[in-house]
Amino acid sequence: MKILTTVAYDGTNYYGWQRQNGQITVQEVLENAIKNLFGKHIEIRGASRTDSGVHATGQRMVFLQDTNIPMNNLPLAINNFLPKDIKILKTQEVKENFHPQYNAKNKTYTYKIYNEKIMNPLYNNYAWHVKPTLNIENMVLAGESLVGEHNFLSFCARGATSKTFVRTIYSIDIQKNNDNIIEITINGNGFLYNMVRIISGTLAYIGYGKLKVEDMKHIIDAKDRTKAGITAPPQGLILKQINY
Amino acid sequence: MKILTTVAYDGTNYYGWQRQNGQITVQEVLENAIKNLFGKHIEIRGASRTDSGVHATGQRMVFLQDTNIPMNNLPLAINNFLPKDIKILKTQEVKENFHPQYNAKNKTYTYKIYNEKIMNPLYNNYAWHVKPTLNIENMVLAGESLVGEHNFLSFCARGATSKTFVRTIYSIDIQKNNDNIIEITINGNGFLYNMVRIISGTLAYIGYGKLKVEDMKHIIDAKDRTKAGITAPPQGLILKQINY
Repeated sequence: MKILTTVAYDGTNYYGWQRQNGQITVQEVLENAIKNLFGKHIEIRGASRTDSGVHATGQRMVFLQDTNIPMNNLPLAINNFLPKDIKILKTQEVKENFHPQYNAKNKTYTYKIYNEKIMNPLYNNYAWHVKPTLNIENMVLAGESLVGEHNFLSFCARGATSKTFVRTIYSIDIQKNNDNIIEITINGNGFLYNMVRIISGTLAYIGYGKLKVEDMKHIIDAKDRTKAGITAPPQGLILKQINY
Repeated sequence: MKILTTVAYDGTNYYGWQRQNGQITVQEVLENAIKNLFGKHIEIRGASRTDSGVHATGQRMVFLQDTNIPMNNLPLAINNFLPKDIKILKTQEVKENFHPQYNAKNKTYTYKIYNEKIMNPLYNNYAWHVKPTLNIENMVLAGESLVGEHNFLSFCARGATSKTFVRTIYSIDIQKNNDNIIEITINGNGFLYNMVRIISGTLAYIGYGKLKVEDMKHIIDAKDRTKAGITAPPQGLILKQINY
């Protein structure tokens, strides 16, 4: 049977999701845990290749394995073989033709910015430290330009290969929480490589006046990565949810 | 001159605040940084002795040192010599007779509980994982009994020495935030050893029905540590603020 699995992890100590030789990755640790439970190597396929330092509370993956363990208990059985910074939250059976990437209807990411002169050490691994004061109203206004279907080439890491750079952003929510963290939450039908981090970097530039609110539209139209802001660092990013 | 200093730290990798032989403590690291800046050992005095694993965003300390560095710049000067998990947020000159503990009017602590069956790995070092579903309404009701002036002997670690166990709690706020974290925020004129952690452990017991709402009053009256709940683990606790 094909098993769809929801995974949460603290990405701090991993070289990202994707298995690679000589580095500890989330995929490898999960495959080892599943191997330890079922006694054989089973390849897993993730929905999203998160980068080194990026976190997830709603990553998804599938693997093929027949089992008599009830789906309610399988997460606990696998978690027994996982370190405490990776946890399986849920497992469910899906049809044979289910694909974790292609069947995704929409995904939600949150990017966190800590916006004070001196960093709060509790967020060293969980937020981007931006010192200049950010004008959240301007960020919200600029974010509105991103909503809808656009060619997001300006917000895609150079060298990335995609058949099309057209994606739809359904919503962007930007607000400051109780801990002085600015949370940028983006929901869309798909995301290009580094897209959320480049959007967050560009919104920060707009927030402290290095770019203007109306520049966001020009940046989209330019289809040119060099027009957008910097790629915000990985530790601020959380893959929150993937809906099918 | 006497310098009052506001300090934030991630307590994960320290054996608490208080200097002790053979262990890395927050106090020792701060004294070493100040020594590196001023070229001599200067003793610091903290307002609160946080335990191993406990965090702070508003710890306070004082030290005696004449300096020409403006108070706005001194935090950055000291931070240069600190690891990234300890940061000086603010320095200000105070009178010679100022005492960081005795002059404190009130302190605020927040205790965080992650209340799902499977732990969110992003909170491993920053929250207590409680699996049974907590009834927050019952916790709020029980919390109300704690507000006011009481003898809190039932909520003090055994063996602790204090002249009096009478303290005043001004407010308790309990709510669930967006990340499924239950935050217990307590403001009071002073706290006994482990008091916030024992209160949090007792509120959790009430939240999942191991104790009843009305038991809170009986526990206070009993003046007996064995009547209260467990001492919640250190990583959920943050010293937020000390007001003078």
